[in-house]
Amino acid sequence: MVKVGVVGYGTIGQRLADGVAFQGDMELVGVADIGPTLPVRALKEKGMPYDFYLAVPENREKLEEAGIPISGTLEELIQKVDIILDATNAGVGAKNKVLYEKYGKKAIFQGGEKTSVADVFFHGYANYEKGIGKQFLKLTSCNTTGLIRSVDCLDRVVGIDSVMIHIVRRVADPGDYHRGLTNALKIDPVPNHQAVDLMLIMPHVKATGVLVHTPVTHGHIITVFAKPKKKITREEVLESFRAHPRIRVVRIADGFLGNASLFKYARDLGNPRGDMYEIAIWEETVTIFEDHIIYALNIPQEAVVIPETIDGIRAAMEMQTDRLEAVGLTNKYLKIGG
Amino acid sequence: MVKVGVVGYGTIGQRLADGVAFQGDMELVGVADIGPTLPVRALKEKGMPYDFYLAVPENREKLEEAGIPISGTLEELIQKVDIILDATNAGVGAKNKVLYEKYGKKAIFQGGEKTSVADVFFHGYANYEKGIGKQFLKLTSCNTTGLIRSVDCLDRVVGIDSVMIHIVRRVADPGDYHRGLTNALKIDPVPNHQAVDLMLIMPHVKATGVLVHTPVTHGHIITVFAKPKKKITREEVLESFRAHPRIRVVRIADGFLGNASLFKYARDLGNPRGDMYEIAIWEETVTIFEDHIIYALNIPQEAVVIPETIDGIRAAMEMQTDRLEAVGLTNKYLKIGG
Amino acid sequence: MVKVGVVGYGTIGQRLADGVAFQGDMELVGVADIGPTLPVRALKEKGMPYDFYLAVPENREKLEEAGIPISGTLEELIQKVDIILDATNAGVGAKNKVLYEKYGKKAIFQGGEKTSVADVFFHGYANYEKGIGKQFLKLTSCNTTGLIRSVDCLDRVVGIDSVMIHIVRRVADPGDYHRGLTNALKIDPVPNHQAVDLMLIMPHVKATGVLVHTPVTHGHIITVFAKPKKKITREEVLESFRAHPRIRVVRIADGFLGNASLFKYARDLGNPRGDMYEIAIWEETVTIFEDHIIYALNIPQEAVVIPETIDGIRAAMEMQTDRLEAVGLTNKYLKIGG
Amino acid sequence: MVKVGVVGYGTIGQRLADGVAFQGDMELVGVADIGPTLPVRALKEKGMPYDFYLAVPENREKLEEAGIPISGTLEELIQKVDIILDATNAGVGAKNKVLYEKYGKKAIFQGGEKTSVADVFFHGYANYEKGIGKQFLKLTSCNTTGLIRSVDCLDRVVGIDSVMIHIVRRVADPGDYHRGLTNALKIDPVPNHQAVDLMLIMPHVKATGVLVHTPVTHGHIITVFAKPKKKITREEVLESFRAHPRIRVVRIADGFLGNASLFKYARDLGNPRGDMYEIAIWEETVTIFEDHIIYALNIPQEAVVIPETIDGIRAAMEMQTDRLEAVGLTNKYLKIGG
Repeated sequence: MVKVGVVGYGTIGQRLADGVAFQGDMELVGVADIGPTLPVRALKEKGMPYDFYLAVPENREKLEEAGIPISGTLEELIQKVDIILDATNAGVGAKNKVLYEKYGKKAIFQGGEKTSVADVFFHGYANYEKGIGKQFLKLTSCNTTGLIRSVDCLDRVVGIDSVMIHIVRRVADPGDYHRGLTNALKIDPVPNHQAVDLMLIMPHVKATGVLVHTPVTHGHIITVFAKPKKKITREEVLESFRAHPRIRVVRIADGFLGNASLFKYARDLGNPRGDMYEIAIWEETVTIFEDHIIYALNIPQEAVVIPETIDGIRAAMEMQTDRLEAVGLTNKYLKIGG
Repeated sequence: MVKVGVVGYGTIGQRLADGVAFQGDMELVGVADIGPTLPVRALKEKGMPYDFYLAVPENREKLEEAGIPISGTLEELIQKVDIILDATNAGVGAKNKVLYEKYGKKAIFQGGEKTSVADVFFHGYANYEKGIGKQFLKLTSCNTTGLIRSVDCLDRVVGIDSVMIHIVRRVADPGDYHRGLTNALKIDPVPNHQAVDLMLIMPHVKATGVLVHTPVTHGHIITVFAKPKKKITREEVLESFRAHPRIRVVRIADGFLGNASLFKYARDLGNPRGDMYEIAIWEETVTIFEDHIIYALNIPQEAVVIPETIDGIRAAMEMQTDRLEAVGLTNKYLKIGG
Repeated sequence: MVKVGVVGYGTIGQRLADGVAFQGDMELVGVADIGPTLPVRALKEKGMPYDFYLAVPENREKLEEAGIPISGTLEELIQKVDIILDATNAGVGAKNKVLYEKYGKKAIFQGGEKTSVADVFFHGYANYEKGIGKQFLKLTSCNTTGLIRSVDCLDRVVGIDSVMIHIVRRVADPGDYHRGLTNALKIDPVPNHQAVDLMLIMPHVKATGVLVHTPVTHGHIITVFAKPKKKITREEVLESFRAHPRIRVVRIADGFLGNASLFKYARDLGNPRGDMYEIAIWEETVTIFEDHIIYALNIPQEAVVIPETIDGIRAAMEMQTDRLEAVGLTNKYLKIGG
Repeated sequence: MVKVGVVGYGTIGQRLADGVAFQGDMELVGVADIGPTLPVRALKEKGMPYDFYLAVPENREKLEEAGIPISGTLEELIQKVDIILDATNAGVGAKNKVLYEKYGKKAIFQGGEKTSVADVFFHGYANYEKGIGKQFLKLTSCNTTGLIRSVDCLDRVVGIDSVMIHIVRRVADPGDYHRGLTNALKIDPVPNHQAVDLMLIMPHVKATGVLVHTPVTHGHIITVFAKPKKKITREEVLESFRAHPRIRVVRIADGFLGNASLFKYARDLGNPRGDMYEIAIWEETVTIFEDHIIYALNIPQEAVVIPETIDGIRAAMEMQTDRLEAVGLTNKYLKIGG
C-alpha cells in the first residue's frame, strides 16, 4: 500500500483525497490545510473520515474552537507518507517543496505551480512513461488535462500535425467569492498557455489558441480544430473517442445542451460531490472540414485532474510501468468508463 | 409500509424519490415521467434503482432507444400505490388529479399548482394537523416552505404579529436553459405570493413583501422583518433557531459568505446530489431593531420542500397524528438535525 | 431626398431611425410600432423628434393614456415613403411584406426573417452590387454582418479559401427580460447559421463554425481561423484591418480587455445611446499559424447592422451604383472611420 | 464663474466633469488622472473637450505614445481652480488632500473616502446648510445618496421615525474586470454602512439594514421599510415622490421591469453616456403596511451622485445659501425634473 498525503484541502485537494481513498492499492494517511475552512468544517461534520494535519500551528486555537481534531503538523504528515499530493494555492507548492526535499519524499504538484518546480510535466495518458520513478511531477491544468486526453486519443489513432484551440473558460468554481466576472467576456492574447502546455507534453504537435473568460462556474468548453497527418472519417473520430474511458460522447439531442447539463447530470448520477471525472465531447460538433477535425468538449474543472494525478502516483512510485495498466487501475478504482 | 409513487421525475421529483426511499416506513414503488430526460438517463446509468413508469405511451420508442426499461404506464403505477407525490410542471398536476380520483388514491401536489387543487394547503411544521387524513394536499413552494419554518419557529416561542419580507430570488436551477435572466434584476409588485401564502398557512399573522429576481442558481435569500407580540432578546431568537432541526445557524465569519457557500458546503458534505434540506440563517444578520426581529435566511430551492412533503405523506396517510412525532421521523430517516 | 420609414421601433429600429436621420440625402418620415413600449415612451419624453405611426389601431387608447401623439397608421406611413426598414420581430416582416407589395414600396428586412422573404441577401461591403435596384433586401444578422466585414476585407487583399469560426454569443441585449441564460454555456450543433450565411453572401468561400451561448449582454466575440489563398504576413493583415473604416483595431494592452470594454468605451465617447458601429479586432489575437490567419473580433450587436442597412437603402434606391462611393457616404454621415 | 477641477477621471470623474461643464455658473478648468486609461483615450478621440493634467509625471511617455496632449501637472491644475472634485479610488483622496491644503483649495471627496477626511458629510437635499462655506466635503456614496433623497423627501412631509432597508447591490460597473461575482449572492453583516451613513446625515432617524451583493451591473435596488411619525396615505407618499425633481416614479406595468429597464431607458433617451441622474421608485411597490411605508427604488450607481456633488460646490463656494435655490440651479443646468 502506497501511503499518500494531501496538502491543501480545497476544491482539488478534497477530490484528490476522495480519489486516493477509493484506490485499492493506496492508503490516504491524511490531509493538511491552514485553518478551519468550509471543507475542513465539512470534514468534521462528516465525522473525520480523513485525519487532519495543521499546516499553520498558529491557527490551532481556531481549529479547536471549531471542534476539529488535529492529528499533527504538516511536517508530521509528510514523514508518515511515501508521496504528497500538493493542491495548495499557486506558488505555495514551490515553498512546500523544501519540506518534501528535507524528508526525501516524492510529490505531485498541480497546474498552478510553475513547470520548473518539477522534474517532469505529466499527463497520465500522454506521457506516463516520463513520470516513472521521478521525485517531483507537475500535473497539467484542468483545461490542458482534458484537452490532451482528446488530442492524445486522436494522435495515437491517426497522428496529429497541429491544433488550433478555442477555450471558453469558466472564471470561478461554485462557491467562489474571491474571483469572478460580471456581464463581461475577457479575452487573452494569443497563444493561450494551454496551447503552449500541450506542446510541452506533446512536443511533436504544433499548437496555438484563443481563450475567452466567461462569467459561469460549471465547466470550460474547448473547441479543437485539429489537423491530422492522414485522412480520417467522422465515424472513426467518434469511435476513437467512444473507446476512451475518460471521454464521454454525449448528444445535444439527448438534453446535454451545454456545460451546466453535465454538471447537473453528474449530480443526478449521485456522484460524490456531484463530480464527473470524464470530459464530454458533443457528438453534433464532431466534424471533418477541409483538412481539419473539429470537435467541442466540456471540462469539469473541479474533478478532471483527479485521475491523471492518481496516474502520477502510480508512475512516480513505480507501481506500474505499463501506461495502460496504470491508467486502467486508476479507472477501475474510480469506476470510470464502466 | 406505505406505498408511494412519484410522478414527474425532474429536479423535485428525483429528490422526493430519494427522500421516500430513505424512509424506513415507506416503500417507493416507482417513478413516472414522459420521456428519456437527463434524470431518467441518469437513473438508467445508475442501474435503475427505482422502477420507471411511462406517462406518455407514445414515447415508448424513445425510451427503448435510450435503453431505459419501462415497468408500466402511469395508470399502472397509480394503482400500485397508496399515495402519489405529484412533482410535474405547474398545471399538469391538476390534470393528473382526475386519474388519482379515478383510482381513489391520495396525492400531494407541489407549490406550482393552484391552491384550489387540494383539500388543504400544507406545511409539516406549521399546520400538520390540518393535513391528517386528507385526500389531496398541496405543499408550500420552496421559498414559502423555508420562510414558514422560521416564522413558525418564532411564533411558537414568542407569538408573531406581522412580518415584512424581502426575497432575493434565484431565477433558475443549475442545469436550466429554458429560463434565465442575464445581468438584470427584476422586481415584482407588492405583495409577493409568498407573503400571501404565509397568511394562508398562518392566518393569524399579517404579512407583505417585496421580491427581486436575480441571475443566480444557488438558493434564494429571504430577509424577514418580524414583529413579535412581546419582547424577545437576540440570544433567545438564536436559541430558538438553533433548536429547530430544519434550520442551521451559520456564520459569515466561518466562511458562509452567501448562498453559493451553502451549495458548496452541501457538496463538500457528500450529501446525495449535493443537496441540503435545511435552511440556513446567518447569525450576523439576526438583530433586534426597535420592535422588529430581523434575520436573513438561505433557501436551498432544490431540496427544501422534501422533508415537508414527506411530512405530508405521514399526515395524509394518518401514519402519525402527533406533529412532532411525524416531523421527527421524517428528520430521522433524512438524517436531518443529527 | 429618399423618404424612409422604420417599422418596428425596438433595439434595432431605434438605431436605424437615428442612422437614417443622420444621412444628408435621406429623410426619416416616421417610425411605427404596436404600442407604448419603453422606446416609444422615451421618444415622447424627448419631445417626439420622429413622428410615430401606430401599427395596431386597437392600441390607440393605450398610446393616448401615455400621452404619445399618433401621426397615422402603419399603412399611412408606408404610403408616404420610398422605402421601409422593417425591424420587427422575426417573422412579422414576412407578414408586413404584403403591405409593402400592396403599395409597391421597397423594403429592407433584418436578419431574423427567412432569407426567402427577399430578392437578395445583402451586405454593404461584400455584395453591394447585387442589391442595386432590388425591391426586397434582407440584411445579414449582427454576427454575420461583422464577420463578413472582416473576411471580405481579407478576401479583397489576399483571397480567402475557407474559414472556421468560433462564436461566443451574448444571449440578450441590455434591458432584455424575455430571454436570458443563468450560469450556463449552451452549445449549438456544427455548423452554425453564421457560417452558412457567410457562404450565401460569399459563395466562393468554404465555411463552418461552432457557437457557444454565454450569459452576457455586451457584444459577441468571434474568432476566425481563415485560410488565405496565398501567403500574407501578420503586419499585412493588421494593415488591411486598420484601413477598413468599419473596423477598429484595438489592444488588450491599452485596456480593451473584452467585450464590455468596448461597450464602456462607446459610452465614454458620448456616442448616441452609447453605441458603436464598428467591429473591433484585438491586435494581440492576430496571428499567422501554419497556413491560417487567426483573429478575434467584437460585435456590438445593437448597432453593427445599421451602416450596412443604410448601404442597402443606397443600393435598393439606386442612389449610388458604386460600392465604395455608397459605403463612403454612409460612413461620412454616421461619422465612421473619421 | 467658479473654477472647478476634477481629479480622477474614471466612472464618477467623467460624469462630474460633464456635469460641471453643463453648469452655467461654473467653469471646468480640466481633469487629471494617472495614465492613458480608456476614459482618457476616449477624451482624445473626442478631440479633448476638457484639458488633461497628468497626476503621475513618470507616465508622460505613455500619454505621448497614445497621442494625448498634457496641459500640466496635478499641482498646476489645483492652483488654477477654486475647488477640486476628487473622484480617485478609495484612499487616494486622503493623500491628495495634502496638496489641496498646501494650496488652500476647497475639495469634495466621494463616498469611498473615510468620513474623517472632510469637515462635513454632505447631501445636497438633506443637509445643504451644513456644507456652506466649508473647505472639505465628503459626499454620500451612491446607494446612500439615492436612499436619502427618498427618506428626506418623506421626512420633510410626514416625519420619519426609523427605517429598515434592504439593498440588492450590483457588484460592478459596466466595463469592470477588476471586480465581479459569478453565480453567487453575498451577504453582509447587519447593519450595512448605508444605514449607518443615513444616521450620520439624518441623526434624528434610526436606521438599520441588510445588504446582498448580486452579479449584475445596472443599478442597485433598495427596499425601504420606513416608520413615519404620523399616518400618511399611499397617495400622499406617491405625490411626495412625484414632486421631487430627482425622483422618477415609474410603473412595472409600463415596462420598467427592473434595474436594466432604467439603464436601457436612459440610453433610449439619448442621455450623455446613457446616464440617469434620478432614482426611480416603482409605483407598484409603494405600500402602507401596518405602521410602515414600503417602497423599492433603483439607484443608477454611475451618475446618481453627480447632482448632489454639484450641490456641494454651491455650498462650499457659498454660491447659494438657500438649499432649494441651490439644488434648483443644479437641476436646471442638468435638465433634471424638467
